[in-house]
Amino acid sequence: MSYLNENLIGVPGGRWKLQTPALVIDLDVLERNIEAMAAHAKTHGIALRPHAKTHKSAEIARRQIAAGALGICCAKLGEAEALADGGVPRILITSPVVTEAGVARIAALNARLEELIVVVDDAQTAAMLDAASAATPLKVFVDIDPGMGRTGIRPDRAPALIEAVAQAKNLKLSGLQCYAGQVQHMESPNQRRDASLSALKELGALRDRLGKDAPKILSGGGTGTFDIDPDARVLTELQVGSYVFMDRQYNDVWTKPGDRPPFETSLFVQTTVISANRTGLVTTDAGLKSFSTDDGVPVIVHGAPAGAQYFFFGDEQGGVIYSEEAGRLRRGDQLACVVPHCDPTVNLYDRYHVVRGDVLEAIWPVDGRGKSA
Amino acid sequence: MSYLNENLIGVPGGRWKLQTPALVIDLDVLERNIEAMAAHAKTHGIALRPHAKTHKSAEIARRQIAAGALGICCAKLGEAEALADGGVPRILITSPVVTEAGVARIAALNARLEELIVVVDDAQTAAMLDAASAATPLKVFVDIDPGMGRTGIRPDRAPALIEAVAQAKNLKLSGLQCYAGQVQHMESPNQRRDASLSALKELGALRDRLGKDAPKILSGGGTGTFDIDPDARVLTELQVGSYVFMDRQYNDVWTKPGDRPPFETSLFVQTTVISANRTGLVTTDAGLKSFSTDDGVPVIVHGAPAGAQYFFFGDEQGGVIYSEEAGRLRRGDQLACVVPHCDPTVNLYDRYHVVRGDVLEAIWPVDGRGKSA
Repeated sequence: MSYLNENLIGVPGGRWKLQTPALVIDLDVLERNIEAMAAHAKTHGIALRPHAKTHKSAEIARRQIAAGALGICCAKLGEAEALADGGVPRILITSPVVTEAGVARIAALNARLEELIVVVDDAQTAAMLDAASAATPLKVFVDIDPGMGRTGIRPDRAPALIEAVAQAKNLKLSGLQCYAGQVQHMESPNQRRDASLSALKELGALRDRLGKDAPKILSGGGTGTFDIDPDARVLTELQVGSYVFMDRQYNDVWTKPGDRPPFETSLFVQTTVISANRTGLVTTDAGLKSFSTDDGVPVIVHGAPAGAQYFFFGDEQGGVIYSEEAGRLRRGDQLACVVPHCDPTVNLYDRYHVVRGDVLEAIWPVDGRGKSA
Repeated sequence: MSYLNENLIGVPGGRWKLQTPALVIDLDVLERNIEAMAAHAKTHGIALRPHAKTHKSAEIARRQIAAGALGICCAKLGEAEALADGGVPRILITSPVVTEAGVARIAALNARLEELIVVVDDAQTAAMLDAASAATPLKVFVDIDPGMGRTGIRPDRAPALIEAVAQAKNLKLSGLQCYAGQVQHMESPNQRRDASLSALKELGALRDRLGKDAPKILSGGGTGTFDIDPDARVLTELQVGSYVFMDRQYNDVWTKPGDRPPFETSLFVQTTVISANRTGLVTTDAGLKSFSTDDGVPVIVHGAPAGAQYFFFGDEQGGVIYSEEAGRLRRGDQLACVVPHCDPTVNLYDRYHVVRGDVLEAIWPVDGRGKSA
């Protein structure tokens, strides 16, 4: 099967001749981000289990593991199956799977992976998993609710569930998970620090209460708190995801120059001007179907005059408003945009166009795209 | 290759055992919607060229053609290629394609379809298309801007472009396209009527000015103006799309009971409760990656107590707030939701689960999913 744009691989300047909309990774930056997080973890004596919900790519997961990660997180069972197909050996699924059919798929996946870990937040699901795991024992993290109420069990009610998992014949109690999703994008560093450390303090108290029965692994954290959570000395590993790409949302988390983390934007959507019959307004080929729309608009970083602003011009098109005094946009011009929110944007595309400078080096599949079931 | 949920085809009650999130079509309703629009068009002596940007499905396109449609619209070239692969014989691509590589793909597609029509809004692109179409002459609609400024040329500047297309050796001037996208979702019927008829009045004036040189086909309109546009006696065909599914956005366009169009909601996202550790709050498996987020939240229509409200609980999960006095939600419960906006929601899924009542009858591919390039 031949892919669109495959003919441009290795062609000088090929990056700017892509058929668009196209999802693009700057490979130099991606590599630096992976190395920087690995170095950070090493310095702070904390492990990494990076979250593949961001990239959904077996290739990137393998690179994170090669840089020292223990394994990879997936949000969904289907995503985990796709990354397993892509050769990722060790996977934690961070959302509860509670149906009979889902539990059967977990048992099948467990039989073919080097390591599969799942989370539970209730005893009934733990019993279902136990019953399905007679052939291959299953590792389980108990999911602790950091006060967000999304998934997990509150620390005061957790010990009974932890005990039930520990006693289950075919389950191996391997850790606790506690992910404070609500904290990650707080733009005040102090607020972010206080909220994250307060959630982890609860988790630490639970660990202390469990004493010698406490599981060894405590898993959580995200890109927004990567430099805060190690200070709490509670988590043993970080589930960082977005640091590989750095979208506009995460770029906004660090506003002070001295405060910047060592990660840069590596992910872009490229789009082409398809209509230019107005003054100071052109239309591109990337609209609501080409970007996530849950948090603002794309930021143009290449190809347009200074000050040009992107807006959504319907499902199929984007608009760019700009001053012609600063330069002129023409049909066929290509723009590169930082995406508002990387995870759901990546989920719109089947392939990454992987570039170094202006050269398209490779096309990688987004293996887990749409695998939310 | 075996698909998730394929094992449920034909199983009684299988609809409510789907691994979710799952995109579901109620086939009885879909069939009624296709018939109702066909009947409407026949009654008003207007043709249909339904827009496949909504469904991206060769199966649904073939059913629309079987019900009398002239052919199918696609928004993008990649979508048209995918539907051509799926056996759709006659396709209009409603957005300009302006790159050399895109024009070469158009020539290749033209050679293998019974009918391909493309739109242009500038002379340079027309010249590129002409140069690429020596082997197989290409049908062209000139795209007229109804004042929205998205694509198209304003009527006062259109005659020169129309003349250039008419004179081009390998192009066949076949029609004018004028799509007033900005009008479709106006919630005041009078505003919608006035705005649409005013755009069409301009188009009619252009047609009259062209006289005997006016092309025969005038194409435009959408679901929001399906019952308004025939009155203008300007368009010869309607590019209606969303009527097949009827999302929350379009349901909101008709607010008065007596005012309802003969279309019902046939498209749903089904989602499963995966966490239920709080009072009056559960978490489901469908979040920002499972619905478009450009216009509000999903509406639960099956499986939850009356008054239950859906909210986005992050990328991977949804939340449901409800009163336990009205009933209790449990892990594993399945909910069906009307989606806020059908086109970009469909674009998140690889497959439709096609049901009659509680029986899963078939799984159809979303052939054009993600084919925005």
